[in-house]
Amino acid sequence: MQLMRIGDRGAERPAVRADDGAVYDLSSVTGDIDGAFLAGDGVARARAALAGGELPRLPDGGRVGAPIARPGKIVCIGLNYRDHAAETGAAIPAEPIIFMKAPNTVIGPDDTVLVPRGSVKTDWEIELGVVIGKEARYLDSPEDALDVVAGYAISHDVSEREFQLERGGQWDKGKSCETFNPLGPWLVPADEVPDAGKLGLRLWVNGEQRQDGTTADLIFGIGHVVWYLSQFMVLEPGDLVNTGTPAGVALGLPGQPYLRAGDVVELEIDGLGRQRQVLADA
Amino acid sequence: MQLMRIGDRGAERPAVRADDGAVYDLSSVTGDIDGAFLAGDGVARARAALAGGELPRLPDGGRVGAPIARPGKIVCIGLNYRDHAAETGAAIPAEPIIFMKAPNTVIGPDDTVLVPRGSVKTDWEIELGVVIGKEARYLDSPEDALDVVAGYAISHDVSEREFQLERGGQWDKGKSCETFNPLGPWLVPADEVPDAGKLGLRLWVNGEQRQDGTTADLIFGIGHVVWYLSQFMVLEPGDLVNTGTPAGVALGLPGQPYLRAGDVVELEIDGLGRQRQVLADA
Repeated sequence: MQLMRIGDRGAERPAVRADDGAVYDLSSVTGDIDGAFLAGDGVARARAALAGGELPRLPDGGRVGAPIARPGKIVCIGLNYRDHAAETGAAIPAEPIIFMKAPNTVIGPDDTVLVPRGSVKTDWEIELGVVIGKEARYLDSPEDALDVVAGYAISHDVSEREFQLERGGQWDKGKSCETFNPLGPWLVPADEVPDAGKLGLRLWVNGEQRQDGTTADLIFGIGHVVWYLSQFMVLEPGDLVNTGTPAGVALGLPGQPYLRAGDVVELEIDGLGRQRQVLADA
Repeated sequence: MQLMRIGDRGAERPAVRADDGAVYDLSSVTGDIDGAFLAGDGVARARAALAGGELPRLPDGGRVGAPIARPGKIVCIGLNYRDHAAETGAAIPAEPIIFMKAPNTVIGPDDTVLVPRGSVKTDWEIELGVVIGKEARYLDSPEDALDVVAGYAISHDVSEREFQLERGGQWDKGKSCETFNPLGPWLVPADEVPDAGKLGLRLWVNGEQRQDGTTADLIFGIGHVVWYLSQFMVLEPGDLVNTGTPAGVALGLPGQPYLRAGDVVELEIDGLGRQRQVLADA
């Protein structure tokens, strides 16, 4: 079972996707896939409603939105794969590096991504997105931390490298541009992901594969990241954590082939579905 | 007229304060002081309702909450006063430095501020808070930018300097701890602030004055900051912009007298009221 949100931007309806690919309207169970839904027994109720055959099937072909309502915050981990740290010329971090994206960057997995005005270094980053399901402050251990994870989704941490790295040094400037966080297509409940620490991540630009990693190579694993974040802030249900990207971004490639209008980016994570975005000028 | 929110944390009611200090319940006009209220004709309706004498007076002594609902994002400008940049040993920035605070750091102006676990460098920063009233993307000029400002409030950008500066270099890590953004007591509508670029800012710790600045000394003024931000992200009604702090923070003082449980911080900005927080251990 996967959770989805289907419909026009800003008017998405909650939905559930059965393992055979059929998608059903979840509106009778919840108003939205949001923090309250995830913190309560929403996932269990969705599962029961799907199993009970009581949900109306949705027609194929509707727009797929992000699988969660706008998060209260998006927290990101920088340089969390050794090969990516190396390609950017950065040292391996001794502890997680934290930065943020504006929550209104979240869009659907196949929505248009805008190259910001004045940008010449718009770059891609496939990441495992972790959605929080319980409030978390000062968690005791990385092992405890997995209990607060509601589920997983593909998260595209689109980044403008000049804004991020050459315009003052605080990365947020290059991370929060409009449309810079495609998310989805699905939120897969944590208990349906056998091992989130062993998922392949792949990204293509115009059909050419650029990233081919695995979450097994995370420097700081999912439990460690969530535990660590909870020492510095209160995580809340519905928050999104972007866990970092493996090697293969434009910044690290010969000739630095940054994105331009018309380019097509496709992303895939084992068991979490697939995204496809066309770039356009803002 | 000033806008307020009165009541227990998480259950505040919208309120309006007359210039004589009496506070009235605004619940008949709006459910909250949020983005929709600010983007619409909420301020005008509040003003009319107050003038019409139709609002019930609230008893004195209720808890004062932040004057706006939780913002969609909090964007901050770093090193935006020359004297503060100098005291931290940083260069004067050539353009605004942008970082973010988690939106759930916002608390009322007199609520307890928590020293994070493991913190030895919790610091104060009085700032002029700018609340956005209209969606803003790629604004044409700093002059246009003032049109999207709904109003102003005292914003306390509480900061943990070790987390901010010595734990990886991205500042967000030291900016988003629980209770780290006291806001208010009032949101003063922009048209009732004669010149937000000439407001005195003052802060005391345990009765000793530590900061004494003026927004006339901002390196990048309010219009410039809002215009600049709109080139890198979409600002939305209800968003909060913290515009930077003048000199006098613990980091820059002899002996670096960082905050500890039991300390009392008081803050004041001309025409925007006064805050008072007692520190406690998280």
